[in-house]
Amino acid sequence: MSRFDGRTPDQLRPVTIQRGWSKHAEGSVLVSFGDTRVLCTASATQGVPRWRKGSGEGWVTAEYSMLPRATNTRGDRESVRGKIGGRTHEISRLIGRSLRAVIDYKALGENTVVLDCDVLQADGGTRTAAITGAYVALVDAVAWMQANHLVRLKARPITGSVAAVSVGIVDGAPVLDLAYEEDVKAETDMNVVCTGDGRFVEIQGTAEGAPFDRTELDALLALATAGCADLTKLQQTALATLSD
Amino acid sequence: MSRFDGRTPDQLRPVTIQRGWSKHAEGSVLVSFGDTRVLCTASATQGVPRWRKGSGEGWVTAEYSMLPRATNTRGDRESVRGKIGGRTHEISRLIGRSLRAVIDYKALGENTVVLDCDVLQADGGTRTAAITGAYVALVDAVAWMQANHLVRLKARPITGSVAAVSVGIVDGAPVLDLAYEEDVKAETDMNVVCTGDGRFVEIQGTAEGAPFDRTELDALLALATAGCADLTKLQQTALATLSD
Amino acid sequence: MSRFDGRTPDQLRPVTIQRGWSKHAEGSVLVSFGDTRVLCTASATQGVPRWRKGSGEGWVTAEYSMLPRATNTRGDRESVRGKIGGRTHEISRLIGRSLRAVIDYKALGENTVVLDCDVLQADGGTRTAAITGAYVALVDAVAWMQANHLVRLKARPITGSVAAVSVGIVDGAPVLDLAYEEDVKAETDMNVVCTGDGRFVEIQGTAEGAPFDRTELDALLALATAGCADLTKLQQTALATLSD
Amino acid sequence: MSRFDGRTPDQLRPVTIQRGWSKHAEGSVLVSFGDTRVLCTASATQGVPRWRKGSGEGWVTAEYSMLPRATNTRGDRESVRGKIGGRTHEISRLIGRSLRAVIDYKALGENTVVLDCDVLQADGGTRTAAITGAYVALVDAVAWMQANHLVRLKARPITGSVAAVSVGIVDGAPVLDLAYEEDVKAETDMNVVCTGDGRFVEIQGTAEGAPFDRTELDALLALATAGCADLTKLQQTALATLSD
Amino acid sequence: MSRFDGRTPDQLRPVTIQRGWSKHAEGSVLVSFGDTRVLCTASATQGVPRWRKGSGEGWVTAEYSMLPRATNTRGDRESVRGKIGGRTHEISRLIGRSLRAVIDYKALGENTVVLDCDVLQADGGTRTAAITGAYVALVDAVAWMQANHLVRLKARPITGSVAAVSVGIVDGAPVLDLAYEEDVKAETDMNVVCTGDGRFVEIQGTAEGAPFDRTELDALLALATAGCADLTKLQQTALATLSD
Amino acid sequence: MSRFDGRTPDQLRPVTIQRGWSKHAEGSVLVSFGDTRVLCTASATQGVPRWRKGSGEGWVTAEYSMLPRATNTRGDRESVRGKIGGRTHEISRLIGRSLRAVIDYKALGENTVVLDCDVLQADGGTRTAAITGAYVALVDAVAWMQANHLVRLKARPITGSVAAVSVGIVDGAPVLDLAYEEDVKAETDMNVVCTGDGRFVEIQGTAEGAPFDRTELDALLALATAGCADLTKLQQTALATLSD
Repeated sequence: MSRFDGRTPDQLRPVTIQRGWSKHAEGSVLVSFGDTRVLCTASATQGVPRWRKGSGEGWVTAEYSMLPRATNTRGDRESVRGKIGGRTHEISRLIGRSLRAVIDYKALGENTVVLDCDVLQADGGTRTAAITGAYVALVDAVAWMQANHLVRLKARPITGSVAAVSVGIVDGAPVLDLAYEEDVKAETDMNVVCTGDGRFVEIQGTAEGAPFDRTELDALLALATAGCADLTKLQQTALATLSD
Repeated sequence: MSRFDGRTPDQLRPVTIQRGWSKHAEGSVLVSFGDTRVLCTASATQGVPRWRKGSGEGWVTAEYSMLPRATNTRGDRESVRGKIGGRTHEISRLIGRSLRAVIDYKALGENTVVLDCDVLQADGGTRTAAITGAYVALVDAVAWMQANHLVRLKARPITGSVAAVSVGIVDGAPVLDLAYEEDVKAETDMNVVCTGDGRFVEIQGTAEGAPFDRTELDALLALATAGCADLTKLQQTALATLSD
Repeated sequence: MSRFDGRTPDQLRPVTIQRGWSKHAEGSVLVSFGDTRVLCTASATQGVPRWRKGSGEGWVTAEYSMLPRATNTRGDRESVRGKIGGRTHEISRLIGRSLRAVIDYKALGENTVVLDCDVLQADGGTRTAAITGAYVALVDAVAWMQANHLVRLKARPITGSVAAVSVGIVDGAPVLDLAYEEDVKAETDMNVVCTGDGRFVEIQGTAEGAPFDRTELDALLALATAGCADLTKLQQTALATLSD
Repeated sequence: MSRFDGRTPDQLRPVTIQRGWSKHAEGSVLVSFGDTRVLCTASATQGVPRWRKGSGEGWVTAEYSMLPRATNTRGDRESVRGKIGGRTHEISRLIGRSLRAVIDYKALGENTVVLDCDVLQADGGTRTAAITGAYVALVDAVAWMQANHLVRLKARPITGSVAAVSVGIVDGAPVLDLAYEEDVKAETDMNVVCTGDGRFVEIQGTAEGAPFDRTELDALLALATAGCADLTKLQQTALATLSD
Repeated sequence: MSRFDGRTPDQLRPVTIQRGWSKHAEGSVLVSFGDTRVLCTASATQGVPRWRKGSGEGWVTAEYSMLPRATNTRGDRESVRGKIGGRTHEISRLIGRSLRAVIDYKALGENTVVLDCDVLQADGGTRTAAITGAYVALVDAVAWMQANHLVRLKARPITGSVAAVSVGIVDGAPVLDLAYEEDVKAETDMNVVCTGDGRFVEIQGTAEGAPFDRTELDALLALATAGCADLTKLQQTALATLSD
Repeated sequence: MSRFDGRTPDQLRPVTIQRGWSKHAEGSVLVSFGDTRVLCTASATQGVPRWRKGSGEGWVTAEYSMLPRATNTRGDRESVRGKIGGRTHEISRLIGRSLRAVIDYKALGENTVVLDCDVLQADGGTRTAAITGAYVALVDAVAWMQANHLVRLKARPITGSVAAVSVGIVDGAPVLDLAYEEDVKAETDMNVVCTGDGRFVEIQGTAEGAPFDRTELDALLALATAGCADLTKLQQTALATLSD
């Protein structure tokens, strides 16, 4: 059975990773998974948060947000409401944890990188696009830090790569990289973050409708692993070209 | 290799489920997983949130919180800081989703149950204890609603049971139901919510140290499934006795 | 005329003071006045707030809060509303002032004790139960500080004891230790904090219905003084036993 | 022994009550107790808060605040800090309760009066000046409501008068109406709200230094009762003249 | 004397106005003034804010915000700080007022348009770029409303056009459309909003260094009027082409 | 055509500038423009905000606020709402900028002056009255700083004077110093801040109704310049007398 947009179950949407989108940030990527577009900037600064001072170790953190009209219906700004919603908190924490999984804090030294992932247009999979794009921005920011001698040239603060993708059971079938139209009717929804060598950094699976059994879980994990491998290649290609 | 408290890798801590702890709430449970103690109250009220009015369907939601000195070091109150932290948000959402997985909204009618899970003492696994206890409080609250004719006597608003447990890789070995001392040194930490018939409602696995591979994941899932089955029995036993 | 629960006008409800309720806090007491149950933890730390640094003097403060379903109808969490209500502020300040009345700051040294009083179940008199229980938790915390050499063994940071009780005019008659059912119909409501030697630390009397005259005031003060003396004995008994 | 400003122990500071200070408010009073100056405005509106609608009864409430430089050292604005402090909450509640003690809600009908008490200059006793002045503003606002037919001409929404004064033990002696210089060194500080016929509406006594005994309490209550009687006369005189 | 980027004093930076940037919003424009890039979306909805209901009139409002790394140094998110800063408030209000100057509320009917202006990259003149772009997004949104019969086809809710530009005195000379490098050293900074027929909607001039005299003011107003005329033509050109 | 209160188009309302209104503040002025009354206090302290430390330069800032019943209808307190509104932010920033225009930061040394402008009664032109009064309070505060050796006696931290006035087009005619009754029907509203030597510090003109053309703008600027010159003389007269 074909998907609403003609994709096969194991097919990603068209993915683009545009480096150097911003003139100010040390690393910046406009990433798109189909119509989902996320601007990821990596801000590198000397020093670490207070609780980490004197440790000799660095820090990497992330903040995720959606523009109010990134979605079909305008949402209130969290700045206007005066507080961050639970979903925003949850995704920001997920992005930070995912990237920290490939960071060697000692090699980074007492420096901090903040990843800002702002969703300019949403069409499903914003958090997985954010992680995939933020990794590339992070690589550029660390390279900038080395070029500017914040980090020793021989240090390898980044120990691997991470990419993320969503999988889910839609109309009874496991599919990869759900667009919004599929997301709203998925019975099970899972986000998987993998390293470039195929191991898991994070698995978050939720039964939106009926609980899922072990067979379904295995099918979803297989799709996700393959999808992350594809994204890893796209990240490598993007990083192989010179950024302006 | 034995664990710090003498348990085998697949052994739960002593679990107690004390129903009817509060005289006010429609359902209330003091649940303990070892030294972790969570007070779960279920508040049943007529009516639903505004966005659901007129739908004929009910709603179930949850709020999780820790007393400031539930942990070894006193934490600031979120009410004093004036905002809810990301971790609290995340766990509240997890508990709510987990319980909604076994709710038939139509059968519940336009009624709401709020589960408050307040951690009185923390020693690892507070969110899984909360889910496991909240389920029992929810059952009591729905029974109260039926006895008080908010819900038809023949309705079955609860379609199954849910229980939750943590698993992780500690000192290289997969273990069940981590106490705090194990939690802080776990390389991988996973919370699993299962239905009473052994299917998955939620899987949240995080590589705290090194990423984990498929073999490790399979071992963790097996431990969690067995642990949830044990908890399901303890829930059934608790519910078999009369609450005062 | 007998009271709704059979007590005489000058009779306390059954009072229990359970020490060592929490494994983490330096002092912890689960206190109950009838169905009112308050968990009081005393957290002792080195150092004082910024405005007191270098003074050589310590500090004692308190925070009071109610679990959302401590009462008959669920209340919103103050953390969710993003601010502390006036009643909470007022009671927290009262508890702190009451305990500071028996503290010798110099003898305490530059150390801080925070008393957290969380109402697990409310049935009238939560603030007086909190003060009475918090005093016992404070004694245990100071003993812990001496055992751990934060405070000199010969120092006497606690100069006396405090206990508190409510009194009021219900159905025209002065009565001691009002339960919720009495509280809601009291014409006058008064909370009195006394030292163990029978002097006043705090008197807060409010005419809820008609203003009260001097004769009524004198009757209330006599009841309160006797009630506090009874509570002082119960505190001494609790402290005479070893805590676990 | 004479006081720092030459007063006898039972002497009020010079008190002025200036009606009609504001052109907008239905009642407005600039009250001064010595150098303490409080602007009290009474805003009368049709309708009541949501929780009181349909009851046929009115409502009276109060908000107290200090200008940032009302005191010797500038304080941060609560609007800038984004929250109301405990002291402000406590005093606002005290003022509201005190005035409601002389309100017949039925006679007021479904109307609301809000008393705003803004301290323009502080020198001790701001809350007692606020209550004393707010009563006069309230009388003017109710008269305005009657003149404008919000309240029936024959109704008597105000059933009595209230005035308030502070008393305390300074240098071992009980004194009336403490100025700031006395307030900071008072061992015991008490605020007393009386009706015009000499009964008590509110008594709030606090041992700032040593606890106080019954003899001291009796002396303070006698001073306060006499002071309130003096203030009652000053209120009557102010109300006897025409406001502009 | 030539400017740092080779422009003449009366020359705009390269301006682009890209319509239809977002697939969700009823109108959307990515506008750039040199390196300043602002995403303007116009969200059209039926209904008006509560205070305007039943008036038969519509409403137009705006919200301005900067992504945290739009500038050279990362700024904290206002959602994280929990409040909106003064500058953000001020600019949001300016944009809303400017667009409302060309709205016929009656012709708009009881409909609302919200303009969200999010600065993706900042290099001076973000508020003037936002106004200029938001106007174009507004035109598209109103056209959408007419096509979807929210507004009568014959109605003319937009009565004219608005564009905005900054002018300032830099190194003693009046110049048009300041880039950030010029903005920081401007002695006087002025933002001017004009209608398409050359009248003023808003003038905001500030002496950052020395106060300015009437001669300087006249020179700035002349530059601004000409600059707005140029921007008006660019808006017309953008609107003459079909948006996708 | 005469104005509603009989003034000529170029006539100010009666202006009073009462120095030394507060006993606590280093400078304090109760300024009135007709029925508009603003209490301006200047608080001088040693030290500067963190971002300015070590610069050798001082800082001047302002906070504007309205009492809730300063206006005809009671407004909610911003402290109760928990946030500062856009209008308050905007005016506070305007007052601060205006006064900083005549400050020599070096001569002020590392000292801070905070101007609090609290509107006790509003009848149009509150921000211009605030600026005009705050300047006088600032002069007194700086004199106090010199008398108390915070600033060298020979230093001249204040390099000129500032005054402000509103102008507008009402019923088609340009008029000076609008009262509230005129303000609400003005087609164009402009606030102008001038130095004592007749140059501009700030011009903020807004078309409330129809956009305005250059001829109207010139007429408004002429009125404002003359009005500020009159206010400058009144400031000088006030400062020529001794404050108590």
